[in-house]
Amino acid sequence: MPDTPLDLLIKRLARLPGLGPRSASRAALYLIKHKEQLMLPLAQALEDAAHNMRACAECGNLDSTDICHICTDHRRDARRLCVIEDVSDLWAIERAGIFTGRYHILGGTLSAIDGRGPEELGIDRLVRRATALTSPNSRPDNSNPSEISEVAGGEVILATSATVDGQTTAHYIAERLAGLPLTLSRLAHGVPVGGELNYLDDGTLAQAMRARQPL
Amino acid sequence: MPDTPLDLLIKRLARLPGLGPRSASRAALYLIKHKEQLMLPLAQALEDAAHNMRACAECGNLDSTDICHICTDHRRDARRLCVIEDVSDLWAIERAGIFTGRYHILGGTLSAIDGRGPEELGIDRLVRRATALTSPNSRPDNSNPSEISEVAGGEVILATSATVDGQTTAHYIAERLAGLPLTLSRLAHGVPVGGELNYLDDGTLAQAMRARQPL
Repeated sequence: MPDTPLDLLIKRLARLPGLGPRSASRAALYLIKHKEQLMLPLAQALEDAAHNMRACAECGNLDSTDICHICTDHRRDARRLCVIEDVSDLWAIERAGIFTGRYHILGGTLSAIDGRGPEELGIDRLVRRATALTSPNSRPDNSNPSEISEVAGGEVILATSATVDGQTTAHYIAERLAGLPLTLSRLAHGVPVGGELNYLDDGTLAQAMRARQPL
Repeated sequence: MPDTPLDLLIKRLARLPGLGPRSASRAALYLIKHKEQLMLPLAQALEDAAHNMRACAECGNLDSTDICHICTDHRRDARRLCVIEDVSDLWAIERAGIFTGRYHILGGTLSAIDGRGPEELGIDRLVRRATALTSPNSRPDNSNPSEISEVAGGEVILATSATVDGQTTAHYIAERLAGLPLTLSRLAHGVPVGGELNYLDDGTLAQAMRARQPL
């Protein structure tokens, strides 16, 4: 029997992360039952997003404009650059609402197994952006001088994942940026807020103990 | 900030069963990264399925033809009707490969809370189909006479869920069909194949004990 349009839909839904063949079947039936309210609008949203979302030429964030709303927001601190792996990391940091600088999205980590080297991640472009931070003319006109004095030459925060590949990537970037008059930093390791000690892995606990803070 | 096409896509994906806001974000990013291989084909598949899949006029199954491939398959036993709640139940029974008759999909169960009565489920249509089973001219020409003699007047298998609503629906249908010269049956309850007794709920275990089989 040839595939019906429904079979094809299930196969394609099943390729989404988080959906397997069973849940794809369930989602497809749900869609068929909500044709006007969800199925056709979803098809439209897929088309729209496919044609109108692009990577920001500056930082790699996804937006419907060539330069994303974060890079064009002059209220944000142009002297701080947070280096992350993926757009979802940007979303996570924005949700936390703690960072007011700009981002640089690598699009992954260095990985010998997957054959991703510095060229694939465009590390040269990051080095150029970091270098631009150190030149005085990169200072935005409307910036607060007192804030800038805190980060003489700017700051690059290496916020790659705490995985082997993520840390390797951070080390590599740190070496590439070593000569520049920049503050280099990385996210603190420690006990997650709300975390119970006896459920924590040894590595995290060791890091938290080593980096203990005076009260 | 107004919603970007990506925000809209995430919102709509999040309405699929099995996906929440986080997994919808992940799926949307995955789609953007696989625009040509998955995102646009998925949009196309949604359109195609929305426009070409319809409920079979006979049994309620979903197919791209007015009468589904099961109802038009003359090798299937037209004297046996399996009454189920949903298309996904049909898929489950077809996967098991044990049933060669036809189906009747109710589209749900009787439910006082959700306001679904016999009219909403089209029970009258089921009664008409069951009545047709008992008339001699419903016998297909190429059917095997020996099989039919086993189910004089046909068989209706009530395969609604083993939930309160499902069983209420089955009882109601059984009452409505009570006068007809039909065999009425329901699925056996018991220990699931591969199931461990100490993980089984008391109800199932009690049913399995009551319906125990001589070796």
